[in-house]
Amino acid sequence: MMATSTLFLDTTPVEIGNLNSSSLPSLIADKYNKAKIIVLSDTNTYEHCWPLLQTNFDFLSTAEILVIDPGEENKSIEICTQLLESLLDYKIDRHDLLLTLGGGVVSDLGGFIASIYKRGLDFIHIPTSLLGMVDASIGGKTGINLQHYKNLIGTIRFPMATYIDPQFLYTLPEKELKNGMAEMFKHALIQDENLWEKLSAIKQLEELISESYIQRSVHIKIEIVKNDPTEKGLRKILNFGHTIGHALESYFFTHDPIDHGHAVALGMLCETHIATQQKKIEHATLQHVETVLLKWFDIPFIPQTEFPTIINLLYHDKKNYGNKIQCSLINRIGNCLFDQVIHEQECYMALDYLQKITRYNL
Amino acid sequence: MMATSTLFLDTTPVEIGNLNSSSLPSLIADKYNKAKIIVLSDTNTYEHCWPLLQTNFDFLSTAEILVIDPGEENKSIEICTQLLESLLDYKIDRHDLLLTLGGGVVSDLGGFIASIYKRGLDFIHIPTSLLGMVDASIGGKTGINLQHYKNLIGTIRFPMATYIDPQFLYTLPEKELKNGMAEMFKHALIQDENLWEKLSAIKQLEELISESYIQRSVHIKIEIVKNDPTEKGLRKILNFGHTIGHALESYFFTHDPIDHGHAVALGMLCETHIATQQKKIEHATLQHVETVLLKWFDIPFIPQTEFPTIINLLYHDKKNYGNKIQCSLINRIGNCLFDQVIHEQECYMALDYLQKITRYNL
Repeated sequence: MMATSTLFLDTTPVEIGNLNSSSLPSLIADKYNKAKIIVLSDTNTYEHCWPLLQTNFDFLSTAEILVIDPGEENKSIEICTQLLESLLDYKIDRHDLLLTLGGGVVSDLGGFIASIYKRGLDFIHIPTSLLGMVDASIGGKTGINLQHYKNLIGTIRFPMATYIDPQFLYTLPEKELKNGMAEMFKHALIQDENLWEKLSAIKQLEELISESYIQRSVHIKIEIVKNDPTEKGLRKILNFGHTIGHALESYFFTHDPIDHGHAVALGMLCETHIATQQKKIEHATLQHVETVLLKWFDIPFIPQTEFPTIINLLYHDKKNYGNKIQCSLINRIGNCLFDQVIHEQECYMALDYLQKITRYNL
Repeated sequence: MMATSTLFLDTTPVEIGNLNSSSLPSLIADKYNKAKIIVLSDTNTYEHCWPLLQTNFDFLSTAEILVIDPGEENKSIEICTQLLESLLDYKIDRHDLLLTLGGGVVSDLGGFIASIYKRGLDFIHIPTSLLGMVDASIGGKTGINLQHYKNLIGTIRFPMATYIDPQFLYTLPEKELKNGMAEMFKHALIQDENLWEKLSAIKQLEELISESYIQRSVHIKIEIVKNDPTEKGLRKILNFGHTIGHALESYFFTHDPIDHGHAVALGMLCETHIATQQKKIEHATLQHVETVLLKWFDIPFIPQTEFPTIINLLYHDKKNYGNKIQCSLINRIGNCLFDQVIHEQECYMALDYLQKITRYNL
């Protein structure tokens, strides 16, 4: 049994290690011994992860469990409303506890309903996907989608605790590991050249399920969020790859959906290309990033006639200011600048580049 | 032209006085000179209040205006979704500003959408009803209804400023003044015997439109909220009259809706009766409160067979803890206790009392 290690984001503990030796049971005993516990899961985690929890923790014997379908399309106002009505049906009050058991969709949605139900219900995240562990379950961002805009609705509210147990990753399909891998690459690119070198050298996806890589990635995110929880400045660097990434994710959402991590990987390629156009980085660095990312992520075809649609989506990005597109751009591997204005033409060029490396790779 | 006076709730200024001599134009010039301004109003305030603002303030010449129907039933997830989609259509971003112009429904709903749109948009309240001025627009509570449960969904988020200009009250029908009057009575009952005596002596509703009464009422609320913004303790006394009041409001909502202030007045009568049952106050005090409130508020008929429905609604109150009904009870005029457990039987007796004073008054 691995020992657990704990990082702190403000007063929120983020524990990494075996859940059975975590502080979860004592937290429940101390703070929620009279509370009703309600668990939010999806059909996958209900099948693969919930039995493990239920067997190991007595306090879950009377818990109610809500199960949603997996997938980004469930981060909707309709599902949100149904879940809020379920909390009401179970007479959940402000002193009760919501526990999310799932990937980013479950923690984004669960955190959001907890933050608005009766003006705030405590919640705990148990992420079961790599993306959830290194990204979605830490940092306090909650959110749902509106129309095809990702996380357009949301709040910033921290869970009472996050428990990261890498054992859950062994239940995941490969594409789910890639989803988290993109965010780990991002953490490395914006903050840690050493981690980038290590991740670049990975040959098998399973090598990612390493407590040290996960811990380093979580640590990077926590340190950034600590400095700027409400994203007035520095925290924006965590959005590297996400400006164009979100636009691509939104665009494909109505065509042939791609995973968030996949979109972020494509976004990082485009934004690294823009950094090259703006002479912030060398062309050789772009080529290096390209080689590493293309090992894991393929590039879907986008007809040039669709570029304006994608560019238009960029104007709805939450980081914009006064009708200008702003994003975060790396200026070397391991460092990132925020509030960088980018121009439509640069975005066209970046999308064009993306399509050219597609053809080159076919 | 009256001078404005400013109270502070944390960093949020609450200005009382003529809007034209307020700090609103300089706040806009300082902080929102590049921002898009979007105004939320209802059909009444659009007709009666918006022209006044538009004439006086140049910065509103390019503002977009959203207009909802008046009434509590519009504090719904459906209207909320439509408004969020409008913000999206107008490409409102995080640096823009929402200005609410209306009563409690508009400020509750506007504050809520601002708090969840792109994880938080700045907003300013300009309350136009007495209820909005002395209660809804200050204190940071936002909310919408779910099914027939009042404010079941919401957040706590403070506006950038609240501007209270009593001139708007002259556009109001009498019943709207009564709506605010109930909350002013409440502030007096829980905190200020002197204000209670003054308000008790009022003979004409218009006497309420007094800057000094409004200011005192706002001051009471601000001082309580300052001490406990997130309602862990003391702030709960502001819910005096609201436990049974909300249940009655919810009950009548599906039958023959009554105003919030009306429901609160009925709730205060019931809860004062419970305080008498629990020997917290003298019977003579109950009679005094009864005489004052019955001068302004009539009591709708509730068949005894409906009492269980109303009692059942009490279990969804946000202030409950562990399946017990909790509320705030006065123990003398000008003082209030919170976290008081009340029993179903006491609630039955209180509703029965309410019906008996009806018959007595017929």
